[in-house]
Amino acid sequence: MRAVDIIQKKKEGKIHTKEEINFLIKGLMDGTIEDYQMAAWLMAVCFNDLNEDETAYLTEAFINSGDILDFSDISNIVADKHSTGGVGDKVTIVLIPLMAALNIPCAKLSGRGLGYTGGTVDKLESIPNFKCALKEDAFKEQIKKIGVAISAQTPNLTPADGRVYALRDVTATVDNKALICASVVSKKIASGANIIVLDVKYGSGAFIKTKEEACELADLMVKTGAKLNRKISAVISSMEQPLGTHIGNSLEIIEAIEFLKGNKNDDLYEITVEIAAKTLILAKLAKDFDEAKKMIDDAINSGAALEKLKEIIKCQDGNPDCINDYGLFNIGKNKYELKANRDGYISKLDALSIAKACKLLGAGRDKKSDTIDFGAGCVLNKKIADKISKDETILTLYWNNVSIERLNEAKEYVNSALEYTNTEPLLEDLIYSKF
Amino acid sequence: MRAVDIIQKKKEGKIHTKEEINFLIKGLMDGTIEDYQMAAWLMAVCFNDLNEDETAYLTEAFINSGDILDFSDISNIVADKHSTGGVGDKVTIVLIPLMAALNIPCAKLSGRGLGYTGGTVDKLESIPNFKCALKEDAFKEQIKKIGVAISAQTPNLTPADGRVYALRDVTATVDNKALICASVVSKKIASGANIIVLDVKYGSGAFIKTKEEACELADLMVKTGAKLNRKISAVISSMEQPLGTHIGNSLEIIEAIEFLKGNKNDDLYEITVEIAAKTLILAKLAKDFDEAKKMIDDAINSGAALEKLKEIIKCQDGNPDCINDYGLFNIGKNKYELKANRDGYISKLDALSIAKACKLLGAGRDKKSDTIDFGAGCVLNKKIADKISKDETILTLYWNNVSIERLNEAKEYVNSALEYTNTEPLLEDLIYSKF
Repeated sequence: MRAVDIIQKKKEGKIHTKEEINFLIKGLMDGTIEDYQMAAWLMAVCFNDLNEDETAYLTEAFINSGDILDFSDISNIVADKHSTGGVGDKVTIVLIPLMAALNIPCAKLSGRGLGYTGGTVDKLESIPNFKCALKEDAFKEQIKKIGVAISAQTPNLTPADGRVYALRDVTATVDNKALICASVVSKKIASGANIIVLDVKYGSGAFIKTKEEACELADLMVKTGAKLNRKISAVISSMEQPLGTHIGNSLEIIEAIEFLKGNKNDDLYEITVEIAAKTLILAKLAKDFDEAKKMIDDAINSGAALEKLKEIIKCQDGNPDCINDYGLFNIGKNKYELKANRDGYISKLDALSIAKACKLLGAGRDKKSDTIDFGAGCVLNKKIADKISKDETILTLYWNNVSIERLNEAKEYVNSALEYTNTEPLLEDLIYSKF
Repeated sequence: MRAVDIIQKKKEGKIHTKEEINFLIKGLMDGTIEDYQMAAWLMAVCFNDLNEDETAYLTEAFINSGDILDFSDISNIVADKHSTGGVGDKVTIVLIPLMAALNIPCAKLSGRGLGYTGGTVDKLESIPNFKCALKEDAFKEQIKKIGVAISAQTPNLTPADGRVYALRDVTATVDNKALICASVVSKKIASGANIIVLDVKYGSGAFIKTKEEACELADLMVKTGAKLNRKISAVISSMEQPLGTHIGNSLEIIEAIEFLKGNKNDDLYEITVEIAAKTLILAKLAKDFDEAKKMIDDAINSGAALEKLKEIIKCQDGNPDCINDYGLFNIGKNKYELKANRDGYISKLDALSIAKACKLLGAGRDKKSDTIDFGAGCVLNKKIADKISKDETILTLYWNNVSIERLNEAKEYVNSALEYTNTEPLLEDLIYSKF
C-alpha cells in the first residue's frame, strides 16, 4: 500500500477500505506518511467526500491513535455533551451539575477557548480559586465521590485528530462534514462516554451557517456513533442571536447560577431541557420527554442541581460563597449602556457582532498565550422580538481596561448588531430539528 | 495575504491574481509557505484547474525562481525542442545536429532518464568517451564554435518547479494540464530558448493516453508561450508503437547515425521533418513547410548533418570513429529473436510492453543510483501494418547480463505486445494534429 495510491483513489472519487484509512492514519503518526500527503488527501476529501463507512473508519482510527478512558469501574453510564460552539453558550455549566443531580455520572474534559469568548474551562476559572487541572486519579476519585468532575487536563486522547486538525486549519480543509464528524465523535468516545448528546448550532454566531448543513452534520454524527456502538443524539439549534442574556466569562457563570436558582431565561431553559431529556432517555432513566422534563424541573426547583454545583466548586478548590455573593466575581468596573433610539421591536441581534465586541473588550483570546479578562462581556436586556421604547437600555457592555480605539470598535459592533421593526417580528424556533 | 486564503479561493473555484501566484511560489521557496499548504493547493488545482492567465503566472513564477540563461551575445535565435516522452524517441539526437547544420544555434540542456529507457544524456553517453558534463563557459564556447552543445549540467533553473514537481509526484497531483504546462514551458524558457517546438505524445507508451488530452495540453503550452513572448509550436503524435526501429541506448544512437546517413525510417523521418520545419519557419529561415523540407533533406543528403554530429562528438571528447564502426558501441552480447507464429499482419505492437521488456534487460533505471546497460534493448524488424510470414523474425532483444527470471519476464512482455490480423490493418496517422 502506498500513500500516493490512496490519495489518487480519493481524487478519483473511489471508496476507501478500512485498511486504507488505517494505513493513512498510522502512517501519519509513525512518520511514514508526510504532512503534505495528508494535506493532499484532505483536500481530495473536501471535493469527493467520505461516505458513512469511511467516516466511521476514520473516527475509529482517530480513537485508536491514543488513550481511551474507561470509567466502567465507576458506572456503566457515562454521559457527555458537545456543542459545536456559540455565543453565550453556557449550557455545559448548567447541564453538568443537573445531570449529576439526576444520578448520571459526568466525566467532563473541556478545553480553553480560542474564539470570541472563553471555553468552558475559562468560564469556570472565573469562579474565585476554581482549579480545573485535575490529575487522572483525583478526577476519577471526585466522580466516585460526587458523580461529577471537570478537568482541563487532556490525556493523550486522539492525537491523530490533533495532527489532522492542525493541518486542516492551515490548508483550507476545515469545512468538510465527514472530517468534522470524525474529529468530534472520536474525541467524545475516547473520553469514555457511551451516551453523547450533540448541540449542533447554525447561524450568524456558529461556524455552520445553514440549518440544512447542521442537519447533515448531525445525521452523520449520529450514524457514526451507531456504527461504533455509542448512543448519540443531536439537537439542531439556532445561533442567530446569543443564547441566554449574559456573554463573557464571569457573566455567564452568574447566569448559570441564576438559572439553577430557578431564574431561567427561556431559550437557555429550552435547549438545556432538550439535551438533558435526551440524555435521561438514552440512559433509560426516563421513558419519554415528559417524564424527563419533570425530573429536570424537580432537580432545579428542589435546589439539588444548585447544591451539586456548590459541591463541584468546593471539590475543585473554588469559593462556593460566590453562589450567593456575586461581588466575589471579577465584573468589569466600566460599563456602557446601549439605548434604543426609537420605539419598536428588535428584529435582529446578531450573535457574531456581539461576540466580536466582547472579544475586543477582553472576553476572548486570539492565541493561546493571550490572557482573558473574566470581567469583560455583555448583558442583554432585550432579545429578538422584544418590544422597546426610545431610550430604554437594550444591552450593557462591561470591561476593565481597554484602549479607546478598541472600546469604540466594540461599540460599533454592538450598534451594527441591532435592527428594529415597527411591528412584532416572527421569532424563529430555537430548536430546528432533533436526531 | 495568507496561504490558507489562497488555497480556499482555489477550492471555491475562484481565479487567482498574479500577486497570489507569486506569493505562493515565493513563499514556498523562502519557507513561509509549507509543503503541506502547497500540496493542498495543488490538489485544489487538480479539481478546479487554472485558467490560461493563471497558468502563465505560474510559469513565470517558476522561471523567476532561479537563473535564466542568456545566449543573446551568441545569437538572437536559440531553438529548443521538448518531447513529453516516448519509447524509441531519438528525435533530439537527430534534430540537434540537423538544426546546427541549418544554422540554428542549439543550446541543449538534457537530463538523465528515470523511466523505461535512458534519457538523451544517457543515450549520448553510450558513445565511447562522450562527455556531457560541460561547465557553463565550455558550453557557451562550443556553441560559439560549432553552433551546438549538449550538457547534463543543470544550473539553478526553475528550482520552484523542482520543489513543486517533487510534491506532485508523491501527492497524486501529477496529471493536471496547467501544472504540466507550467513545468515544461518554464524550464524551456529559463534555458534561454526563444523558439520552442513541443512534441506532445499520446497513447500506450506516453503518459498522456488520449489525443484529446494531448491537444488540450499542446494548446495550453502554445498559448502560455505567447503570453510570455516566446514562439512555441507543437506537434501531437502517436506513441502506440515505438518510434523508429531501435529501442535502448547504443541502439538508438546507431539508428540516429543511420538516419543522418540517409537510411531513414518512415515515422522517425516524418516527425523529425515536422519539428525541424516548424523550427525553421518560426526562425523565419524558411517561408513554408515545402521550403523547410527541402532544406532539411539537403542537410541530410549532403552529409552536413552527419558531419555536425561528428563535430559534436569530437568537441565533447567522444570517439567519432563510432560513426563508421558500430563495433565500438556496447551492444548486448546475447540476443533473442521473436518469430511470428503465423502468417498475417501485425495489428498491435504495444509501446509500453516493449519498453518494460527493455527496462528489465537493463536499458532503463528505477532510481537515480541504478546503472544502465547501454547494450540492452530491442530492434524491431516489423512494425504495425507490416506483412509477416510464419517463423519470420519480428523483433530481437539484446542484453548482456540479466537473470533468467528477468529475461523470461522480458520475453513475456514482448510476446504480449503483439497482435495479428489476417487482413492488412489501417495504420493510424503518426501525427494527429499541429499547433
